[in-house]
Amino acid sequence: MTDSTRTAHSTRHSTTRRNVLRGTVATAALAAATTAPAGPAHAAPPAGGGPEIGILLYDGFSLLDPTGPAEVLSRLPGATVTMIAERRGAVRTDTGDVAVVAERSLDEVDRLDVLLVPGAGNRGTVAAMNNRTLLDWIRRIHRHTRWTTSVCTGSIVLAAAGLLDGRQATTYWAAAEYLEATFDVTCLPRRHVRSGKIITAAGVSAGIDMALYLASLLAGADTAKAVQLAIEYDPQPPSTRATRAGPTPG
Amino acid sequence: MTDSTRTAHSTRHSTTRRNVLRGTVATAALAAATTAPAGPAHAAPPAGGGPEIGILLYDGFSLLDPTGPAEVLSRLPGATVTMIAERRGAVRTDTGDVAVVAERSLDEVDRLDVLLVPGAGNRGTVAAMNNRTLLDWIRRIHRHTRWTTSVCTGSIVLAAAGLLDGRQATTYWAAAEYLEATFDVTCLPRRHVRSGKIITAAGVSAGIDMALYLASLLAGADTAKAVQLAIEYDPQPPSTRATRAGPTPG
Repeated sequence: MTDSTRTAHSTRHSTTRRNVLRGTVATAALAAATTAPAGPAHAAPPAGGGPEIGILLYDGFSLLDPTGPAEVLSRLPGATVTMIAERRGAVRTDTGDVAVVAERSLDEVDRLDVLLVPGAGNRGTVAAMNNRTLLDWIRRIHRHTRWTTSVCTGSIVLAAAGLLDGRQATTYWAAAEYLEATFDVTCLPRRHVRSGKIITAAGVSAGIDMALYLASLLAGADTAKAVQLAIEYDPQPPSTRATRAGPTPG
Repeated sequence: MTDSTRTAHSTRHSTTRRNVLRGTVATAALAAATTAPAGPAHAAPPAGGGPEIGILLYDGFSLLDPTGPAEVLSRLPGATVTMIAERRGAVRTDTGDVAVVAERSLDEVDRLDVLLVPGAGNRGTVAAMNNRTLLDWIRRIHRHTRWTTSVCTGSIVLAAAGLLDGRQATTYWAAAEYLEATFDVTCLPRRHVRSGKIITAAGVSAGIDMALYLASLLAGADTAKAVQLAIEYDPQPPSTRATRAGPTPG
């Protein structure tokens, strides 16, 4: 097949494709997730919208720590997910390869329903632990959150801000001994740990598990399951040929 | 504890923290992954560096599709991961909440060792399928790649570019019937499917599994396992208190 016949083929079927895509691609589950009515499990969203979720970016963060949870949480009914950093603009990851855009600066954000602090490599984690502006902002926002959360070594940043004193938490596996030795924190070897309104997740990919748990707290178990289906998440992906029609929203 | 005593506490321990962090946080596994020597399993990296990996961004992509694999692949020895789009600059996701920076435009990239095409919501997928510039670039780059890969509905974009004719592939669960009905493709309900030098992944989070498989092809199984440990990935996370010292690089 030449490029020109391929393009003709593509054009010829584009209308059909659109119709079929509307019916199948990404829609059953995503529609269920984004249009599910707010049931009793929906914890008092602000009038006119769902939860306002803010994710703190700082130099050297680990890419999946904020993006895994953002993928999950941005699919909740009416939710907004905002990337926040000391200054607006591109913030670069630990490996230096990728940059994510911070849409708001710290001084533009006074209140959040949910705060998420990602982890970083050594350099980024240490810098964040010693960044007074960052820690002050975290403490200030935490006073009014419904949930304050972290992924990976983000729990060390929460601890440096004094938020984990006397609490149980989890963190990146290789940082657990350090967290316990340095702060008044008891580490549990779990994917995520809830202590009051603080939820900490283990390393990197565990942020996805934590976000699905948080989704169930914010929007109910059925919506969380619809999102899990939408992102086809293992270890028990609900994706089989038998469930193609998608779940029934709760 | 007041803020001022907390800051004093933080400052007092900062040197100790740095030393301890160097020894523990994110280091055993990450160091193993990033400094492991290129062994026999290392498939002929270009002189002076590891594989050049390019990830195509386009309007409406699903955030985790490129960022999950980027988290994995950017940790391979000497690898570079570059986000690429029609134009340099911020490219926004399907939900509109997050933007990732494209560091290179299509016309700045002629060769890649690995190309990865992420998926998108309906609108983004249909637009990409009908974007002749994008499809031409994909075909041109594919001629010289070692591996051409996709996540989620990215396989529909590869199919629209004519790359999947007569092949086995996988895609987002809700798009499988569409892909088979529209193109000469046989869909397998698996997390990832390799057909020659093309590797397709199922929905969203399956990109992480595919990237770990690709990591083993590019850098050997031991390095891939070290990266899996570094991102603490389920379903079988190798993170236990017993393995804190990290794996031995291969």
